[in-house]
Amino acid sequence: MSLLKETLAQIKRPNQDMEKQARRRLDNLTKPPGSLGLLEEIAYRLAGIQGQVLPQQAKDKLVIVMAGDHGVTAEGISAFPQEVTPQMVLNFLRGGAGINVLARQAGARVLVADIGVAGKALSYDGLISCRVKSGTDNIAHGPAMSREEAIKAIETGINLVQQQVTDQLALVGTGDMGIGNTTPSSAILAVFSGLEPAQITGRGTGLNNERLQHKIKIITQAIEVNRPNREDGLDVLAKIGGLEIAGLAGVILGCAARQIPVVIDGIISGAAALIAHSLAPLSRDYMFASHLSAEPGHRIMLDLLGLKPVLHLEMRLGEGTGAVLAFHLMEAAVNIINNMATFTEAGVSQG
Amino acid sequence: MSLLKETLAQIKRPNQDMEKQARRRLDNLTKPPGSLGLLEEIAYRLAGIQGQVLPQQAKDKLVIVMAGDHGVTAEGISAFPQEVTPQMVLNFLRGGAGINVLARQAGARVLVADIGVAGKALSYDGLISCRVKSGTDNIAHGPAMSREEAIKAIETGINLVQQQVTDQLALVGTGDMGIGNTTPSSAILAVFSGLEPAQITGRGTGLNNERLQHKIKIITQAIEVNRPNREDGLDVLAKIGGLEIAGLAGVILGCAARQIPVVIDGIISGAAALIAHSLAPLSRDYMFASHLSAEPGHRIMLDLLGLKPVLHLEMRLGEGTGAVLAFHLMEAAVNIINNMATFTEAGVSQG
Repeated sequence: MSLLKETLAQIKRPNQDMEKQARRRLDNLTKPPGSLGLLEEIAYRLAGIQGQVLPQQAKDKLVIVMAGDHGVTAEGISAFPQEVTPQMVLNFLRGGAGINVLARQAGARVLVADIGVAGKALSYDGLISCRVKSGTDNIAHGPAMSREEAIKAIETGINLVQQQVTDQLALVGTGDMGIGNTTPSSAILAVFSGLEPAQITGRGTGLNNERLQHKIKIITQAIEVNRPNREDGLDVLAKIGGLEIAGLAGVILGCAARQIPVVIDGIISGAAALIAHSLAPLSRDYMFASHLSAEPGHRIMLDLLGLKPVLHLEMRLGEGTGAVLAFHLMEAAVNIINNMATFTEAGVSQG
Repeated sequence: MSLLKETLAQIKRPNQDMEKQARRRLDNLTKPPGSLGLLEEIAYRLAGIQGQVLPQQAKDKLVIVMAGDHGVTAEGISAFPQEVTPQMVLNFLRGGAGINVLARQAGARVLVADIGVAGKALSYDGLISCRVKSGTDNIAHGPAMSREEAIKAIETGINLVQQQVTDQLALVGTGDMGIGNTTPSSAILAVFSGLEPAQITGRGTGLNNERLQHKIKIITQAIEVNRPNREDGLDVLAKIGGLEIAGLAGVILGCAARQIPVVIDGIISGAAALIAHSLAPLSRDYMFASHLSAEPGHRIMLDLLGLKPVLHLEMRLGEGTGAVLAFHLMEAAVNIINNMATFTEAGVSQG
C-alpha cells in the first residue's frame, strides 16, 4: 500500500469518551458553563485527540514552512517577483522573518522545506530539501503538476511529519512561502465552494484594483482550462494546486494519522486543509483554525471546514505566522482545564 | 484641583512623530506592507505611547480586577446569586480562577480590589480594600450611587494605578467581578449608543429566554427611572453604573494619564471605557481592545470606541481573562517591530 493510502487509512475519530469527560470537567470549573467559549472547545478537542481528560502541554512545538513556486506568476498575478521565494527561504534560515520572530516567542521550532522552489536546488544549512520539481507549471494553460507528482508532494509532507514525531511533539503549525500562491489557493477554494473567483479572490501581497481583476480572470481561466473534478481532491490539487499546498496537505494528513493537533495558518494552508479534508474527512478533527486572514475567501474556506478562527488580526503574510500566534491559545486551553479550581474545591455557589 | 480633574488634564495625545517613524520601519521589514495587520497597528501605537520608535516589552504586567455588587440583582437579572461575588474574590486570591490561570501564563500579576462588595468588608490577605460603599443601590428604582460616590470610585481606580506605577510597569489589563454587572454595563451602552436595550442586552452568565426578556425590561426601567444625561459621563455612571465600573474607568484614566497602554476586557470593562472616553476622549488612544465577547452589545461598544478586538473566542467570563490573553499579542507586536529583518538587511527584493 502506498504511504498516502496507508496514512489515510490510519486517520480515525478522536476519543469521544475523553471529549465528553473533559466537557464535564470544564462545566465544574469556577465559571459559568461555556463562558470560556472556544478555549473550552479547544480543551475538550485536545482531550479527545490526546486520549486523556486532562490534555498535556506540548514539550515540542513545530511550525513547518513549505516553500514552492508557481508557473502562473508569469501571468503577473503577484505584487512581488518570483526571486523573493528563495530570498525569503534564506531569511527564514537566518531567523529574520516574521515567522521566526513569532516562533521564538511561542517557543516553537521552525522547519523550512524546499518542496519546489523554481530554478536550481537551494543548498543552505538547515534547509530541508525535498523537491518534487522546480515549481509548478502555469495553471492558466494546463495542470500544475501530474497526479503522480501531486501524490509524491503529499507524501513528502507526510514523511516530514513522521521524521519529526517524538513523544514530545504535540503541536504542529502549517506555514507557506511561495510568490503567487494565493492564486492556486483561491482557485482551489472556488472549486470546492462552487463560488465565482470574483467572490473569493483577494489582493494577496497587495495588488491594485486593475491587477486584482486580472488575477480573477487568470483564476477563472485556470479552472476553465483544467476542469478539475471537485469530487477528487487529488485531481483538484494536481490541476490547479501547488507543490507547497500539496506538501502542507501531507503535513495535515500526517498529523491526523499520528493524532497530533495541527494549527492551520491562512488561505494557502487553508487550501491544503481543503485538499486534506477531501481526501480524509476525519482529518478535520485534528485541525484547529488560527486567524481570519484579510483575504476575502478565508472565512468561506473555514466555514467549509467547520473551523472557527480565534485571531482576527487582518493579517495576510502566511509563513505560519497566524498558526504560531494561536499556539498561545491552545496552551491557554490546556492550562484552563488542568489548573482552574472546581466549584467544590473553591466553595463557590453554582447558578 | 481634585484628583479626577488633575488626571483628566494630564491626558495627552501619544507622540505622533514616533508613530510615523514606527510605521516607516514596519514598511521596511521583510513582509508586504501592512501584511501583519493589527499587529502593526499595535506596534506603532505603542511606539507613540512609549515615545520611542522601538517600543519595549513590559517588564511588569498587571491585571486589575475590581469587585463590586449591584442592588439590581434583587430584580433577578443574574443566573448566579450575589454571594458568588465574595466567593470568587477568595478564589482569585487563592489562584484558582480563570484569570489566575491565564495571568500566570502571561507572566502578569493579578491585583484584586474590593471597591464595593455587598455586606461586611472582606478581610483577606492580598486583597486591596478600597470600598466606596457596600454595593450599589438598585438602579431599577433610583440611582446606583451619588455623583460624589461616583467620583470617589473613579479616583480609587486612579489611585490604584498610581500606587502601582514603576518604570517597569508598561502593560495593564482591566478585569471585573460582580454578580449582575452586565445589567448596568448594557444600560450604559444603551445610553451612549442610543439603541434599545433589546438590541444590545445579552444573557450574561447564562439566562434563559424568559429571564433575558425580564433583564431587558429592568434595563429599560432603570433608564426611564434615572434619565441619565449621555453628555455627562459622571451622570450616566452615578445613575445606572456600578462601583467596579467606576473603578475601572479610573484605572483606564490613570493609565492614560501615566501613558501606560491599557487592555480592555469584555463588556463591563467596555462600559468603563465608555465612561472614561466620555470624560476624556483622548484616553481612547491608550486603550487596546482584547476579545470580542459573546454578549451581543460588545461589538457596538467597541465600534463606539473605535477599537478592534483581536481575539474572537466567544468568551463571556470577565475577570480580565480576555485582556490578559491579549497581552501575548501586544508582546508579539513589540517583537515584530524590534526583531524582524529589513528588506536591505535580508537582501530581499521589494514589490
